[in-house]
Amino acid sequence: MNRREMTMAMALGALGAAETASADDMAALQAQVSHVLSIYERAWNAADIDAMFSLATPDIHWVNIVGMHWRGLAEVKRAHQVYADLMFRDVPIQLQEIESLRPLSGGGAIVVARWAVGAFTAPSGEQRPPSRDRMTLVMIPQGGGLAIAHAANIEIVEAAAAFDPISGSPPPGR
Amino acid sequence: MNRREMTMAMALGALGAAETASADDMAALQAQVSHVLSIYERAWNAADIDAMFSLATPDIHWVNIVGMHWRGLAEVKRAHQVYADLMFRDVPIQLQEIESLRPLSGGGAIVVARWAVGAFTAPSGEQRPPSRDRMTLVMIPQGGGLAIAHAANIEIVEAAAAFDPISGSPPPGR
Repeated sequence: MNRREMTMAMALGALGAAETASADDMAALQAQVSHVLSIYERAWNAADIDAMFSLATPDIHWVNIVGMHWRGLAEVKRAHQVYADLMFRDVPIQLQEIESLRPLSGGGAIVVARWAVGAFTAPSGEQRPPSRDRMTLVMIPQGGGLAIAHAANIEIVEAAAAFDPISGSPPPGR
Repeated sequence: MNRREMTMAMALGALGAAETASADDMAALQAQVSHVLSIYERAWNAADIDAMFSLATPDIHWVNIVGMHWRGLAEVKRAHQVYADLMFRDVPIQLQEIESLRPLSGGGAIVVARWAVGAFTAPSGEQRPPSRDRMTLVMIPQGGGLAIAHAANIEIVEAAAAFDPISGSPPPGR
């Protein structure tokens, strides 16, 4: 592995199976993943649910930030439409970083993407400040590119992040 | 056909095969997934971190219920050891259901598993009642079986579940 390939692999968080992917393969995969996320981001910000899931598989599953599990494209789109109408219209999201990209055999990828999410009002009436989500996505080949087969979206609890055993300060008393 | 087109064609062929997986293939996959989850469950309940990740890939990534993102087996084990020592020892988990199982080309699977989690005390001192988690796992072939390449674990917010646009009652006022 030359220096450029090493830099690419490290930048993409690629280990294991990814070590056998060339830098060109990884760059191509990164571009495909970025394209899917870019379509999703633009469509969310336009509250266009059909466009949000234009690059999804018919059997997509989605687990949202409060743990709801939606199965298949029709459910996933209907649920997102309800929440767009209820609270997320005009709440902007922005992709902050593709934190990891792990190739799957057959051309797919496991992705962790971090999003900035604007303030919104929960159905309970609670005012939620701007937040960050970490979204796991599994993308598989479809129609010449990648499509989302699965997403699990987790809101980052900022108060906990300071005590992350890996990236944060040690917990108090330790 | 260039290399990328060939990779894509192979992927699509494999996907087609997965979508038409026989009942026998699905039963075998289900058994492999159950085995991995069973090892994980038993090891958690024994607070044996090495055993918990005995069926994991070296490049495993893990996103926990508060959105921390750990990269690679060493980080994932160290973080779980810290939390086992800090709050999760003697907090039982129990697999409730494998809610979905989606074959991946090459023999892997995307899994959603629901866990019952015992009461625990958060590092803040807050007493948390028994809860349920929905965990997305991506498993890939390793050593003759499956191993966890990724997990994203979401705590189910029970107060929100009643208003799930798909499985719950409609939100108030709608």
